Amino acid sequence: MNKKFLTLIEEEKYTEARKSIIDLPAVDIAKLFEEVPQPKLVVVFRLLPKDLSSDVFTHMSSELQRQVIEAITDKEVVAIMSNLFMDDAIDFIEEMPANVVKRVLKNTSEDTRTLINQFLNYPTDSAGSIMTIEYIDLKKHMTVGQALDYIKANGYDKETINTCYVLNSSRVLEGVVSLRQLVLSDDEEILEDIINLEVDSVKTHDDQEEVATTFKKYDYYVMPVVDNENRLVGIITVDDIIDVIDKEATEDIHKMAALQPTEKPYLKTNIWHLAKNRIPWLLILMVSAALTGGIIKRYETALQSVILLAAFIPMLMDTGGNAGSQSSTLIIRGLALGEIEPKHFLKVIWKELGVSIIVGIILSAVNFLKIYLIDKAGVLVAITVSFTLVLTVTLSKVIGGILPLLAKRFKMDPAIMAGPLITTIVDAISLVVYFATATWLLKL
Amino acid sequence: MNKKFLTLIEEEKYTEARKSIIDLPAVDIAKLFEEVPQPKLVVVFRLLPKDLSSDVFTHMSSELQRQVIEAITDKEVVAIMSNLFMDDAIDFIEEMPANVVKRVLKNTSEDTRTLINQFLNYPTDSAGSIMTIEYIDLKKHMTVGQALDYIKANGYDKETINTCYVLNSSRVLEGVVSLRQLVLSDDEEILEDIINLEVDSVKTHDDQEEVATTFKKYDYYVMPVVDNENRLVGIITVDDIIDVIDKEATEDIHKMAALQPTEKPYLKTNIWHLAKNRIPWLLILMVSAALTGGIIKRYETALQSVILLAAFIPMLMDTGGNAGSQSSTLIIRGLALGEIEPKHFLKVIWKELGVSIIVGIILSAVNFLKIYLIDKAGVLVAITVSFTLVLTVTLSKVIGGILPLLAKRFKMDPAIMAGPLITTIVDAISLVVYFATATWLLKL
Repeated sequence: MNKKFLTLIEEEKYTEARKSIIDLPAVDIAKLFEEVPQPKLVVVFRLLPKDLSSDVFTHMSSELQRQVIEAITDKEVVAIMSNLFMDDAIDFIEEMPANVVKRVLKNTSEDTRTLINQFLNYPTDSAGSIMTIEYIDLKKHMTVGQALDYIKANGYDKETINTCYVLNSSRVLEGVVSLRQLVLSDDEEILEDIINLEVDSVKTHDDQEEVATTFKKYDYYVMPVVDNENRLVGIITVDDIIDVIDKEATEDIHKMAALQPTEKPYLKTNIWHLAKNRIPWLLILMVSAALTGGIIKRYETALQSVILLAAFIPMLMDTGGNAGSQSSTLIIRGLALGEIEPKHFLKVIWKELGVSIIVGIILSAVNFLKIYLIDKAGVLVAITVSFTLVLTVTLSKVIGGILPLLAKRFKMDPAIMAGPLITTIVDAISLVVYFATATWLLKL
Repeated sequence: MNKKFLTLIEEEKYTEARKSIIDLPAVDIAKLFEEVPQPKLVVVFRLLPKDLSSDVFTHMSSELQRQVIEAITDKEVVAIMSNLFMDDAIDFIEEMPANVVKRVLKNTSEDTRTLINQFLNYPTDSAGSIMTIEYIDLKKHMTVGQALDYIKANGYDKETINTCYVLNSSRVLEGVVSLRQLVLSDDEEILEDIINLEVDSVKTHDDQEEVATTFKKYDYYVMPVVDNENRLVGIITVDDIIDVIDKEATEDIHKMAALQPTEKPYLKTNIWHLAKNRIPWLLILMVSAALTGGIIKRYETALQSVILLAAFIPMLMDTGGNAGSQSSTLIIRGLALGEIEPKHFLKVIWKELGVSIIVGIILSAVNFLKIYLIDKAGVLVAITVSFTLVLTVTLSKVIGGILPLLAKRFKMDPAIMAGPLITTIVDAISLVVYFATATWLLKL
């Protein structure tokens, strides 16, 4: 299908090209358009019927959206804008350069312009920034039959009609009723008697991550967003929440790898930007790692007399780093999913201590045998390395378990307290233990 | 609320306790029950009306479910089981010990038992394992009015009625129609004329991660699951897909930190089990790190003459590890979200090379100045360290970028190719470069 459409476009057989895509889902058409050579893009876009074209437009990359908007007439801009759901319109406008935004706003009605400006003012990552305004509002004195008639008349351009909201004359949210309830009820019943008065709502400035947590907990498909006076201003649907969940997981994963998180896909980020996101943490960690260098220098004479000690430094550091990463990762993810909370501090220390003892003893035993039997490095060196290993593993695991919890308690992002930082901290401590033990055991 | 209920239970004021929770969402009641002392659990559970009790049961932890099931009568077991949605029943049964499963199955009807056994046979992580069977099926010759009447009569105990499926007499899936379409259409229209014939479905054995990707791409709320003859066997709803998305992200995050992934929450996993999930990778990586020890031993004489060289080993290794982690993390997450594919191999290498040069030069410059001006270690040592750093960063980033892509191409899990493994590989290479450069520059 893909190939066929592009070949038809190349051969300028537009009618056939149109026929080959017209029944595809909008998102697939948008993806096909990414491959169309730029000069033909607008021609191809104009092949679409009006309704479909807004839908396809929503799913295009912002680069493509810009190209289309810059090439079409003002009248076409009006047509697209009037068919976009508010949340999609905002997503689009936020990504456009200033001159495009100006042109788009010039071509929308005064009312819509005011609304768009209001939406653009909601903080990024707030409930307001992901909500939309195309919902069904009912009145509580309506009968079920009247409500269904009202939905029939007004439902066509709404994002969802599966959940409807009951508002009073000041648009204050009074209750919620699902299409399911309406359909399963008798036509004569009054809404007031069947609506659910306990409506769980969020505020425009609530953090989208908290909203996502509520969606997950109660298996919601849609939630109302209200202002401080409890007036309904929008709704959030579960498809947008899925995007939030993916985005938040990506952000955590990036932070855990010492990256400054970015929403832009890797392939569409240029090299300078990629470098900019990586340098800060690498620099901080590199400078911190100099501390370990200082420790080695302090023990230079010890090292000089038993140079073999240097050979075990990489293994000790890597194992400590990995052990710490494991613990901090489990805690960070547990915090993100709400399975662990800062109050579990002592439980975490206790568990990590227990695990450290088991893991430490097994790793040390393997290590001792390897050094003694294969490396033939002498029993004292073997003991020094193995002892340091147990201590390093224990320290890494306890520190890896605690730091994310402390971060959370002090309202910092736990995801920073991951492998890279833990490794740097534990490296220094374990080197001190290593050389202190060696100096004492080997009498250096 | 929480405190009040538990106090009332303690004082054995059950009627009041019941009143204090009866209007809460089932998931919140289940959470409260976690705090109830075991001997009173069944008493408290029996306070709930029948409908609500199944719902609360679904949301309880499997430990609590077991305690309840073991304490109630066979008749009560029947009541709960008959009210559970099939997907929740399966989740519950999968977590129970054999004796409980036996008792539960004994107390279900022959038909349900057959169904449960069929569901238990679907592979973990398959579409079949997360689907449920409570859907609305219509016939295409029905009018919209008849369909709505049918839904009214049969919709009450269905997981969703917002999407209905049109089946022929052999239960083959012929089309789909949303409640929205039905409500917005005239009662006299025939379903055949309004249903969507292009139904996107999944097979029972499809991987749940792929199903989740389809949900995300098309913003679905529900999808039908069919067998090889295209007969409808169940539906998957978006709330279960959200669980899949969270689970898959957790699995990736765990693997990236050298953990064997587990679905059990941290706080509910015992120390032995936690240790078991951590030891294998720690052992593998520890033994591999011995390679680096071998390299240091080979250059023992060089190290002996300029012992200062040892001081920079931790910094080089940490920075290399962090640089590689950053790249592999970006690629692994990009692959998981479908933003990057194995075919982008050359693009990734190109980008990572570009980024490496920028990052490498900046880090090396800072490092050179620090060693030369602060450590006063001599210009040759400074050059050796800085040169090795550029090379280490470049190697780490290119290897970190490539390995996840190769893993994906060869149908392995890219998440394994993360920080810990990359660090171990790059450590060895960078040490060779370090000592080779030192031997040559410092004429050792």
